[in-house]
Amino acid sequence: MRHNFGAGPCILPQEVFKQASRAILDFKDGLSILEISHRSPEFEGVMAEANKLVKELLNVPSGYSVLFLQGGASLQFAMVPMNLLPEGKTAAYLETGVWANKAIKEVKFFGKAEVVASSKEANFSFIPKDFAIPADAAYFHYTSNNTIYGTELFEVPKTTVPVVCDMSSDIMSRVIDVSQFDLIYAGAQKNIGPAGLTIVIVKDEILGQSGRAIPSMLDYASYKDNDSMYNTPPVFSIYTAMLNLNWLKSKGGVAEIEKENKAKADALYKEIDRNPLFKGTCAVEDRSRMNICFVMENPELEKPFAKFADDNGFEGLKGHRSVGGFRASMYNALPITSVHALIDLMQEFEEKQNKN
Amino acid sequence: MRHNFGAGPCILPQEVFKQASRAILDFKDGLSILEISHRSPEFEGVMAEANKLVKELLNVPSGYSVLFLQGGASLQFAMVPMNLLPEGKTAAYLETGVWANKAIKEVKFFGKAEVVASSKEANFSFIPKDFAIPADAAYFHYTSNNTIYGTELFEVPKTTVPVVCDMSSDIMSRVIDVSQFDLIYAGAQKNIGPAGLTIVIVKDEILGQSGRAIPSMLDYASYKDNDSMYNTPPVFSIYTAMLNLNWLKSKGGVAEIEKENKAKADALYKEIDRNPLFKGTCAVEDRSRMNICFVMENPELEKPFAKFADDNGFEGLKGHRSVGGFRASMYNALPITSVHALIDLMQEFEEKQNKN
Repeated sequence: MRHNFGAGPCILPQEVFKQASRAILDFKDGLSILEISHRSPEFEGVMAEANKLVKELLNVPSGYSVLFLQGGASLQFAMVPMNLLPEGKTAAYLETGVWANKAIKEVKFFGKAEVVASSKEANFSFIPKDFAIPADAAYFHYTSNNTIYGTELFEVPKTTVPVVCDMSSDIMSRVIDVSQFDLIYAGAQKNIGPAGLTIVIVKDEILGQSGRAIPSMLDYASYKDNDSMYNTPPVFSIYTAMLNLNWLKSKGGVAEIEKENKAKADALYKEIDRNPLFKGTCAVEDRSRMNICFVMENPELEKPFAKFADDNGFEGLKGHRSVGGFRASMYNALPITSVHALIDLMQEFEEKQNKN
Repeated sequence: MRHNFGAGPCILPQEVFKQASRAILDFKDGLSILEISHRSPEFEGVMAEANKLVKELLNVPSGYSVLFLQGGASLQFAMVPMNLLPEGKTAAYLETGVWANKAIKEVKFFGKAEVVASSKEANFSFIPKDFAIPADAAYFHYTSNNTIYGTELFEVPKTTVPVVCDMSSDIMSRVIDVSQFDLIYAGAQKNIGPAGLTIVIVKDEILGQSGRAIPSMLDYASYKDNDSMYNTPPVFSIYTAMLNLNWLKSKGGVAEIEKENKAKADALYKEIDRNPLFKGTCAVEDRSRMNICFVMENPELEKPFAKFADDNGFEGLKGHRSVGGFRASMYNALPITSVHALIDLMQEFEEKQNKN
């Protein structure tokens, strides 16, 4: 039995793997999902269903479009200012980690980014709370979940300017109110589907306002106007995302998975706080439900615990080098049984230490 | 028995489908290829092998880099001038079809495109031959195979300026001399692998010369400097491309597949020229080996022949709306038996007509 706590690309439901595997051999009439035209009625059906599922699961209001792109969140770091930042204007950014920082860096090609607050000095171990967003900013950008540092923003900061959010690592993990956002983007490879797909949810009225001439493939309008088929889309990633979103729907949707995600996170944090060998790395009130970072009170025990986890079939628990220690990524598809197995492992390790 | 003559995403070898399907269930130690980290040694091995295979199969000389990107050829239409066209300079383009035309349109965001020749007036039914490429052009761009119109450029036009080629639909189908090019790009979904991957082969010394500040994900240097892992790459598409390139290698490589592609194309063109019901749409000397376009002498027979093909398990034979009639796309993975089956079908249809 393997337990995949990897940070992404990450675990998807086993039944999604089975369905995707079958579709590679026979999607329709003996043809593989890899050899069908994206212009075929069959794939147009897949695209339409994937779109509908995103809208349904996140309760996307009218006046918003769901777009399927490529290039990951990293391409969005540039596309957001390219599409939303008029020449000479400033955008406001909250700096909560490496990905926020990378997003900030890409703004310079289009204008100015003002960092309204940062927890960089504290190695991004908390989410800054009291900051002012300038009323004349073209938009305010933040990262809702910080995969590397294990912090998460559950409340949308209050502002009168358009809100843009990188939700790559917590989209579909909890209920959100899309109407509070003007643009949401997410690389697919956590809770949506395989790598190679990016989802954008955009309020239609904010498009076409920057006054910039934008190359077709970098213009959100090209995707909106062509049902995300301006050119050949990433067919297999979209198909598998559709399977995965259907799985989420069958589980009861985002509200139900949120309960499960809360239960999973609560259980593991409880053990981290109880077990004298381990400690969390973040401010308690900002703890992420998706990526749970922890270190050992005695750093010399890190290697032995890592080996113990490895020997017992645990994958992807190594912390990012900028935090060290361990990171348990617990996306939607990670079963709670894997979390319990990890807790058991931590307790067994504690008992072993006590015997020494 | 199905025969998939689709223009792309298109047929891949059946054994590649089988291997890809298996890897979705179990790539390594019970983990799916969709749930492994792109930073794992296993995937780094896949990436390195895919890179090596491209170099080996195309005999890429030293001083060139092979890059794996997303966004298709359409994103390259913008990335090429963004990376290679200095402010105020002009690039030379050969207009041989819709894709060349789209590439030309994206230049305007960065500078000027000079169309050195066009066959637009003749519905792109031939490749312009006598044209001059200005010696002060920043580069010369052409499309080697025109999927929609069924024409192909087998000789690289002579010029002293850097040569950029969109080889999306004939890369890996015939031997090329990479040293004649400064940049080659190709959407993967014909002869390389599944949709969602783009390959770029670039002469290192032409990078960083445009004087432009380029966003990270749009800068070829980011891919070159990070082994195409500046961010999460399209893992599954790269893995399947690796399988497919390995298949090509096992078949004897590009020189061998070129012989087979020639034999396939020769056989079908021979039948088109012989069969009084059919005729080709392009100049004979410019006929593509990848996409064979033909119409019926009597347009009233198009529907009956389309139905006859459909009833007999032939997929994707409908011509593009801008040419009409039929298009048989015959990429590397289409077996010659499918070509013979199509020829038989055309002859049976002829016999049926003679009986009427």
